[in-house]
Amino acid sequence: MSSDKEEKIFLENYDPYDYTPMAVTVDLVVFGITRTISDNYRKPDSQELNILLIKRDMMPYKDCYSLPGGFVRPDETFIETARRILREKTGLDNIYLEQLYTFDAVNRDPRMRVVSCAYISLIDADKAKIDNACWAGIAEAEKCNLAFDHNNILDQALMRLKNKITYSDIVFNMMPEKFTISALQEVYEIILGVKLIPAAFRRTIAEKIEQTGEYEKNSGHRPSMLYTKKHI
Amino acid sequence: MSSDKEEKIFLENYDPYDYTPMAVTVDLVVFGITRTISDNYRKPDSQELNILLIKRDMMPYKDCYSLPGGFVRPDETFIETARRILREKTGLDNIYLEQLYTFDAVNRDPRMRVVSCAYISLIDADKAKIDNACWAGIAEAEKCNLAFDHNNILDQALMRLKNKITYSDIVFNMMPEKFTISALQEVYEIILGVKLIPAAFRRTIAEKIEQTGEYEKNSGHRPSMLYTKKHI
Repeated sequence: MSSDKEEKIFLENYDPYDYTPMAVTVDLVVFGITRTISDNYRKPDSQELNILLIKRDMMPYKDCYSLPGGFVRPDETFIETARRILREKTGLDNIYLEQLYTFDAVNRDPRMRVVSCAYISLIDADKAKIDNACWAGIAEAEKCNLAFDHNNILDQALMRLKNKITYSDIVFNMMPEKFTISALQEVYEIILGVKLIPAAFRRTIAEKIEQTGEYEKNSGHRPSMLYTKKHI
Repeated sequence: MSSDKEEKIFLENYDPYDYTPMAVTVDLVVFGITRTISDNYRKPDSQELNILLIKRDMMPYKDCYSLPGGFVRPDETFIETARRILREKTGLDNIYLEQLYTFDAVNRDPRMRVVSCAYISLIDADKAKIDNACWAGIAEAEKCNLAFDHNNILDQALMRLKNKITYSDIVFNMMPEKFTISALQEVYEIILGVKLIPAAFRRTIAEKIEQTGEYEKNSGHRPSMLYTKKHI
């Protein structure tokens, strides 16, 4: 074991500027379900899966759309960077965040070597106060030439989301407090890209939700029961 | 859209040295099954789950054990760094590698801010020519004070391995070309830390393996059939 003194001298003489600098960013794939309330009870409310995009006001890729993101500050962990960006763009705190993958292609940023740790965030879009950002439908975002390698990050995030909603509870991060089973089923269908059989869906989801005793409003003469996530 | 010329001028004037430098490393959790061949056919061969450790010959943490790892070079992707380190330590190429997680605690390295992207690697330990490294049993490694946050990385890697061998084919990366079903079952048992019922294990694994027509040698008067991974 080298002595504490030797290590101290070594560290005092270590100069981070001796090496080719790298930078680290966090990029966020913020998924949210937006809802359009129908004013006609015969026409159901519609839901859409969106991601948050920003229009860049700085070079490089000025005026292009990109995922929200930013440089990790020297005293920040990744999750702190992610929370700071989310607060700036959505006004929300205490949001579901999960590390997706770190993107490392050598020339992914024209400024310098930048590796980006991508996080997935799931929010109830109706609660967000969007600032300097906009919601874009998934299909629309996929067709858009996003800045950097953000189309690639979006693809990987979608795969993770599709995979994970089948075996976890993360979907409830995108739902309002109270919801009908058919609204919840529709969110699964939108994310998975398939139609589900209502009876089978009810059986699968039964253990994760519970009745609130309330019914939805303004929905004609056969309103549906409202459910909420079961708190175990 | 800013003009190409504007972006060019911007990039020419961008100085990476204007910012607090960060460094990026790759650390490897290399799992391997080591086998001790019994010279007595009544005593079965024994298998053990190990990880590759190195004894650091440089500061910081000189003379401590750590996971193999190294700084990502300016022109390297993470997987290239990982392959370079694996080649140096094991002589092996074309090895299973998967990104685990990026570790980002602010003071995890005393030299400077270093974020480390950890990879899991699974190898057939008997094929490796270990150089400047050693195999350590999992329990032994967990008890050891590894350098940096490497105990934490090891914990996360073990969770991923336990989780993933139940729904994927990755276990075969740690097996020799031909193996008995009981040797394969034992590897699952070692990783999962539970005993499995042979009949149930055979049913579960049946679709992933196929008979070779060969039998194990030196194993008494009732040798077992050798199997191999089914190539689909």
